[in-house]
Amino acid sequence: MFHHVKELQFNARVSKPDVRFAKLLLEQFGGPNGELKAAMQYFVQAFGCRKAHPDKYDMLMDIATEEFSHLEIVGATIQMLLTGVNGELKNAADESDLTKMLDGKAAKENYIHEAMINPHFFLVSGGTPTLTDSVGNPWSASYIMGMGDLTADLRLDIGAETSAKMVYENLMKFTDDVLVKESLRYLMTREVAHFQMFQAALDSIQPNFPPGILQTDPKYSNKYFNMSKGEDFKGDWNEGTSPELREEWQFIEDPLQHVIETNGMLNETASGTDRTEKSVQKDNRALSSERKSEIDAANSSEDGIMQWSNYSSKKDEQKPKKETAKSVS
Amino acid sequence: MFHHVKELQFNARVSKPDVRFAKLLLEQFGGPNGELKAAMQYFVQAFGCRKAHPDKYDMLMDIATEEFSHLEIVGATIQMLLTGVNGELKNAADESDLTKMLDGKAAKENYIHEAMINPHFFLVSGGTPTLTDSVGNPWSASYIMGMGDLTADLRLDIGAETSAKMVYENLMKFTDDVLVKESLRYLMTREVAHFQMFQAALDSIQPNFPPGILQTDPKYSNKYFNMSKGEDFKGDWNEGTSPELREEWQFIEDPLQHVIETNGMLNETASGTDRTEKSVQKDNRALSSERKSEIDAANSSEDGIMQWSNYSSKKDEQKPKKETAKSVS
Amino acid sequence: MFHHVKELQFNARVSKPDVRFAKLLLEQFGGPNGELKAAMQYFVQAFGCRKAHPDKYDMLMDIATEEFSHLEIVGATIQMLLTGVNGELKNAADESDLTKMLDGKAAKENYIHEAMINPHFFLVSGGTPTLTDSVGNPWSASYIMGMGDLTADLRLDIGAETSAKMVYENLMKFTDDVLVKESLRYLMTREVAHFQMFQAALDSIQPNFPPGILQTDPKYSNKYFNMSKGEDFKGDWNEGTSPELREEWQFIEDPLQHVIETNGMLNETASGTDRTEKSVQKDNRALSSERKSEIDAANSSEDGIMQWSNYSSKKDEQKPKKETAKSVS
Amino acid sequence: MFHHVKELQFNARVSKPDVRFAKLLLEQFGGPNGELKAAMQYFVQAFGCRKAHPDKYDMLMDIATEEFSHLEIVGATIQMLLTGVNGELKNAADESDLTKMLDGKAAKENYIHEAMINPHFFLVSGGTPTLTDSVGNPWSASYIMGMGDLTADLRLDIGAETSAKMVYENLMKFTDDVLVKESLRYLMTREVAHFQMFQAALDSIQPNFPPGILQTDPKYSNKYFNMSKGEDFKGDWNEGTSPELREEWQFIEDPLQHVIETNGMLNETASGTDRTEKSVQKDNRALSSERKSEIDAANSSEDGIMQWSNYSSKKDEQKPKKETAKSVS
Amino acid sequence: MFHHVKELQFNARVSKPDVRFAKLLLEQFGGPNGELKAAMQYFVQAFGCRKAHPDKYDMLMDIATEEFSHLEIVGATIQMLLTGVNGELKNAADESDLTKMLDGKAAKENYIHEAMINPHFFLVSGGTPTLTDSVGNPWSASYIMGMGDLTADLRLDIGAETSAKMVYENLMKFTDDVLVKESLRYLMTREVAHFQMFQAALDSIQPNFPPGILQTDPKYSNKYFNMSKGEDFKGDWNEGTSPELREEWQFIEDPLQHVIETNGMLNETASGTDRTEKSVQKDNRALSSERKSEIDAANSSEDGIMQWSNYSSKKDEQKPKKETAKSVS
Amino acid sequence: MFHHVKELQFNARVSKPDVRFAKLLLEQFGGPNGELKAAMQYFVQAFGCRKAHPDKYDMLMDIATEEFSHLEIVGATIQMLLTGVNGELKNAADESDLTKMLDGKAAKENYIHEAMINPHFFLVSGGTPTLTDSVGNPWSASYIMGMGDLTADLRLDIGAETSAKMVYENLMKFTDDVLVKESLRYLMTREVAHFQMFQAALDSIQPNFPPGILQTDPKYSNKYFNMSKGEDFKGDWNEGTSPELREEWQFIEDPLQHVIETNGMLNETASGTDRTEKSVQKDNRALSSERKSEIDAANSSEDGIMQWSNYSSKKDEQKPKKETAKSVS
Repeated sequence: MFHHVKELQFNARVSKPDVRFAKLLLEQFGGPNGELKAAMQYFVQAFGCRKAHPDKYDMLMDIATEEFSHLEIVGATIQMLLTGVNGELKNAADESDLTKMLDGKAAKENYIHEAMINPHFFLVSGGTPTLTDSVGNPWSASYIMGMGDLTADLRLDIGAETSAKMVYENLMKFTDDVLVKESLRYLMTREVAHFQMFQAALDSIQPNFPPGILQTDPKYSNKYFNMSKGEDFKGDWNEGTSPELREEWQFIEDPLQHVIETNGMLNETASGTDRTEKSVQKDNRALSSERKSEIDAANSSEDGIMQWSNYSSKKDEQKPKKETAKSVS
Repeated sequence: MFHHVKELQFNARVSKPDVRFAKLLLEQFGGPNGELKAAMQYFVQAFGCRKAHPDKYDMLMDIATEEFSHLEIVGATIQMLLTGVNGELKNAADESDLTKMLDGKAAKENYIHEAMINPHFFLVSGGTPTLTDSVGNPWSASYIMGMGDLTADLRLDIGAETSAKMVYENLMKFTDDVLVKESLRYLMTREVAHFQMFQAALDSIQPNFPPGILQTDPKYSNKYFNMSKGEDFKGDWNEGTSPELREEWQFIEDPLQHVIETNGMLNETASGTDRTEKSVQKDNRALSSERKSEIDAANSSEDGIMQWSNYSSKKDEQKPKKETAKSVS
Repeated sequence: MFHHVKELQFNARVSKPDVRFAKLLLEQFGGPNGELKAAMQYFVQAFGCRKAHPDKYDMLMDIATEEFSHLEIVGATIQMLLTGVNGELKNAADESDLTKMLDGKAAKENYIHEAMINPHFFLVSGGTPTLTDSVGNPWSASYIMGMGDLTADLRLDIGAETSAKMVYENLMKFTDDVLVKESLRYLMTREVAHFQMFQAALDSIQPNFPPGILQTDPKYSNKYFNMSKGEDFKGDWNEGTSPELREEWQFIEDPLQHVIETNGMLNETASGTDRTEKSVQKDNRALSSERKSEIDAANSSEDGIMQWSNYSSKKDEQKPKKETAKSVS
Repeated sequence: MFHHVKELQFNARVSKPDVRFAKLLLEQFGGPNGELKAAMQYFVQAFGCRKAHPDKYDMLMDIATEEFSHLEIVGATIQMLLTGVNGELKNAADESDLTKMLDGKAAKENYIHEAMINPHFFLVSGGTPTLTDSVGNPWSASYIMGMGDLTADLRLDIGAETSAKMVYENLMKFTDDVLVKESLRYLMTREVAHFQMFQAALDSIQPNFPPGILQTDPKYSNKYFNMSKGEDFKGDWNEGTSPELREEWQFIEDPLQHVIETNGMLNETASGTDRTEKSVQKDNRALSSERKSEIDAANSSEDGIMQWSNYSSKKDEQKPKKETAKSVS
Repeated sequence: MFHHVKELQFNARVSKPDVRFAKLLLEQFGGPNGELKAAMQYFVQAFGCRKAHPDKYDMLMDIATEEFSHLEIVGATIQMLLTGVNGELKNAADESDLTKMLDGKAAKENYIHEAMINPHFFLVSGGTPTLTDSVGNPWSASYIMGMGDLTADLRLDIGAETSAKMVYENLMKFTDDVLVKESLRYLMTREVAHFQMFQAALDSIQPNFPPGILQTDPKYSNKYFNMSKGEDFKGDWNEGTSPELREEWQFIEDPLQHVIETNGMLNETASGTDRTEKSVQKDNRALSSERKSEIDAANSSEDGIMQWSNYSSKKDEQKPKKETAKSVS
Repeated sequence: MFHHVKELQFNARVSKPDVRFAKLLLEQFGGPNGELKAAMQYFVQAFGCRKAHPDKYDMLMDIATEEFSHLEIVGATIQMLLTGVNGELKNAADESDLTKMLDGKAAKENYIHEAMINPHFFLVSGGTPTLTDSVGNPWSASYIMGMGDLTADLRLDIGAETSAKMVYENLMKFTDDVLVKESLRYLMTREVAHFQMFQAALDSIQPNFPPGILQTDPKYSNKYFNMSKGEDFKGDWNEGTSPELREEWQFIEDPLQHVIETNGMLNETASGTDRTEKSVQKDNRALSSERKSEIDAANSSEDGIMQWSNYSSKKDEQKPKKETAKSVS
């Protein structure tokens, strides 16, 4: 259940209206790397771990709720930047007077010019934020990602914070308003803070690589295919040891020839790795079993009826607990 | 600023998993008439009236926050209906065993059949809700409407509650789970409650017709064009008096002939109405002036700096006030 | 079956080309509140009431057809505003001459500047209207709403006319062309006329509240949850009597406490209302029975074959009829 | 200006309800190759040629209007196929009775199964057509194409008729209802008729290749790059003479080597063609001049005011004329 | 399997950065008529004819691969046009210095102005191309068409080349950079070359009209409905002989009357054609049989296992073959 | 420039047709986590680093090209799974015979049932893959992410590989075809291999945290806001040290009170960190300078003309180089 208090989490202020920056700032209100995307991504992911991973559920809901609060900060800033638009639209009858005045032409021209910057502010939303990105694409839930597995979801969340940080960094180049910059810097900082929270949570789950359950096929896990010829380079990504599985990279200089020779890789063999098909299957079974049992334990109920909240036990829940389940910590 | 408590606003419960109903219920999670649409529509509209109409801002944020809380109820219900999906996916290694068993074929077939109902539950979200409608279209901000004028916005909000109510009514036909129905009925009822709140707020603004500022042209405001021939009917919508402006409907039997005769309606004259061009212009000016002054008054600030929240005055704001501004009440 | 005559319903005229206003006007050609949305919404809704509610079908098709005719007016106006764009594009070979001329640089610069306003006019549509809104989002059928129930659909249609009226009102601020304004004012007026037709039609159906069939749960229908703290206000939407059901609003000062105390509202009781669970069930059954019988009567056919039109009876259908069916009028 | 008569252009009939085929038929109601796409594509293209090419405008509006009438046929058929859905939804109160009956379980199960086919029919549209394709994607104006040049637009229209024909052909495999097939075959036939109308109109414009104005560069117009190695084939598309420009195809056996040798084709030379840079420039200028003069002539007006329709001249326009303009016929 | 070499197929060059033209050029990078659309359309269509029509598969993959290479040329050109954007964004810390300088205001203003042209270049992509059209709509697979029948697909491909050619022609009006024009002209020419390849391939399939298998109903195939009254014209599309089926056009002067008289065309009769229902059915059966047998032959396999590539036979496949199958050549 | 060879990178095989699994597999053909998304994301990002980071450009193009090759494997597999669909559609004339046969009813029923699984396979694509996800949403470029900064882009690419791996893992649960599983496992493994390549590349850039240039504000970088009350937990994400900046987490137990007390955090102070505003500004300047100089160096050209490829130097480029630039390695 959500509550709202009318104070913003951060004291957002604006020195003067600026339709142009309002347009740019929409990128973080209704854009694919913005606050709504972050809020909804963590909120939706949280449902899946409420029962089996209540500590991660707590963290996801803490951050999701903060992101909703940031969405409000961004919207409030846009609203202040648009001050005057709505009042002028209300002046619906007096427009003819405007052009009668000596400088009416210029004022009107300027007004039309502002409308070109983002017609929606003037024609549709009446001077309030629109839930679009900075060029007008409506926010879409296709921005949201979540796979129902924390070893994947937390990585996707790190990605979300990464791109959100970048957009705030870029936005700062386009305003001189020190008050607006103050808010932008706060919001940018919080993205980096969240990044580290997700990283810490990911680190607390072991093993967490590869994401999910299944191990990779050792025949293909350390091959590097040189698919783009000309100006070829070597680096840690195609020579030496792979960073997670610690296998030796195998550089395939001529992929076409290799494919022909291996009958489309059906005859490929593993090299540069200690992992075997047998070890892989063993690991698969062990991890499947462990992770499934976590879920099953969380889903068990006595009478078969499922219930999301337990209202009577409320008082006991108020003190922070430390998760100690073996497989997660 | 938002807060979250882990208790749902309504004690949502589920008797047993049901992937099919989970799919249908998505309509109210990520569909165009669902809870997120309502929550975001009121939340976005609210920015525009924070300063000039703080009472309506309060109402919009109360209801928006409740809709977010309803979104959580719907998501929690879907999550409970999907119990078992995630656990089975975690069982990644043991799939081969399944088909080895005597009834493996049937179990597998059933599992695949369930996946066909909504592949996203099984392939992508891992048994958590997806922010789509019931056929899989991702939620889009194009569902959200708001014009920056309360006489329009509140009518659009009544429309939003109307369609949301209908979907809940329809959903109830597709489940036998009395616990799920209990939640659906609660949610359906709340849509109707909100409908009435918006209606009351709209009634408190006078005049509120037509929406916006500008009055209509009396030459065209009461014409009814009989554009579809065959099985023509008369009713209160084309004979007698129009319900708001109280003008006499003028039925244009043969629109083509009428258009030719009036030179494309440039030579049209008003009839069946007391309104005149002069009275219209007078009303336009009066309402423009009044509504603009409301906005201007709200936007004035002493030092030019705009600020959304006032943290020091917090204690004084906690008691409900009664709006008494002339033009609004 | 549709017909077309080449005369516009309104004699749309333009004083001079204006690419900028052409861009803004797209909002009503291919935007979410525009003429195509209105036309298609009423057209699609009409299918559902052809049999059971032929009078409403007649009205919906009259208005839908007028909206198609308005779409044509808007498109024609945009086309005239874009005069010159297509001719200049045809001048494909002579472009080099342009920059050779003394003022070629400025002319070219100006041309490029115009292209920035809406590249699609210059690169894609070749100076004809595009079926997008004013920022370039393609028209989407997700704008269309209809629930298969007139008590809901007519309210959604009132909403559609509301927002369309607002956009025309706003558009008038951005052109000085008196001929264009003349057309805009005509179109704006017609939206208000349609609003009243839909209102009259809705009033002719009794009962029409709540939309649909099912009555609300008296335990939850008059609660107001104070979900947003700080600067709280009282008004007709949270104190006194609700406008439709005439129940006493119950103000929940502290929703979280209330939810805990009522076990997630499962223990909620009705207050401030005369309605009871029993009366609700009775009303539900009565209205279900009445509305279903309307549909069933309309669907009955002698030989089982369904046919949309009856060509032989055409002559008799030409005189307007008055609907007299009890349950509808 | 559009009119509507309540008779369908074709006497659409249905033997019995069929929710499954209703879902499939949506493909031609709101799908990318369907009737709305065709209607809107020709309608939008028509604006651009109203003045300069009134004969093509007439044809486009004739066919666009017929496509709207076909959209109505498709919608009416879907509506009849959905007979019973709306009535059952109106039966909102009696649902509990259903499951009390002996066969209630099976009836309910069957009902839910039907809802899975297309939830929107049951939850949202209440048994009326939805403006989507057969899997539920809302119709989008991105389906519409038009470049403001008839030599391009008519080819795009031929493409539109091509794909529409295919979908009707495919649809016929999925219904046994001879009455429905009768309508499908009519609609399929009309697509082919329109195809030929567009072809005839395209043939009446000379030259019409390449589409648009600018001729191609003879250095690159007849090269065939063998970009996909293995199982290479020769055919009229890479040996012999090209079908329109009648140049000799030049087969580039090894594109990479060719690109290196020609310095990224900057040093390419023309071969297998009589066209030269000089002849190209001459043709460009001639065609630019001719096509631009057509547009300019159509746009000239005496007083500068542009007007779409001429109401006074209506009587003279009723007899079909034959276009005789030199450059077009 | 794809390979990449770092040399572009055409030596794309740019004289100086130009953010405005970069924005326009996006139309061919991520727009509906651009290179990705073409590449993906042919690539996807190719899957369907790999087995039954290997010569057309070869052609489609040759052209698809060339289009991917063109996409790279367009992207590289945009990247060069955006030179400087990324560097300036990296200058994140020094922004305050900029405004301290004497001309800082103007420089900053200019920078912001450029950002308004396309905010995504500055806020999101960091000065790299975005996969959108010129107004910012993300590329969508709904642009792609293919029906699984070459007589349809090749026509759709001709349409794709047609619109792509037009956009390049239009783009050339908006840059003075002769190096950029050089690339545009190359790309434009290649679209016309591909057009002719598809035309030649279509001509090599007989019969290829109508697209698909089923013949049209002779009762409806040559009717022209005069659905748009006023300024009616005659032309080869409604009088004389239809261009493909060589039937006499039947002009229906008054469609409404005609529909009434023929009982919704159920009583229509064929005229102006030699085709009969009997001849149609015979043709349908013959073509069905022939085309199905082509597919069946291609799908037959000895052991039931399907395999896409045959690695051992690679050497034999390298010499171009000539298709000689009866029904295709 | 791309090349294609007709052999797949992996020898994809299928045991028997399976329309259902073909539908599921679409998720990786045209879905948001699929092969086209990966291919296009890396391809688009690559443009931005061609000049300044040629080693990363090489890697991105190697992997992008491999992903295109994987897209082809997935498409080929879907095509084989759909074997029979196209042939049956070609059987357009014989459909009436089918139902005449004794078991015609069942065969037809089965065929219709298959069509319900994914109507597009049967009505639109004619038995070829469609560029959609498994429920039919067309692929959208909004899936693609890239910020023009490798410290961000490589993290987003790690995210892309993460989700792609998960979908393959999930897909394996829904087929028993060992040949199909073989391909799926290969593809899954490659995603993990790419993950590690991106990780290694990211590690080779120092510093790479936070992504981008700007350091965070030490006042806000280590605060944890307890925004969701009830069942609160402690973990490495809100107590102890943050994983990247190594600051002490500051747990804000009651965020509302904290916000009020700090005047909306304007009065916040740093704690638990050694970083200061001064050190932050210094780091910002240093990194800005370094990263900008990398870009500037790459963009310098002698004659001002920009060129993407250098054809003459081709031979020298063929041997892999080792990047040694200070700031990157």
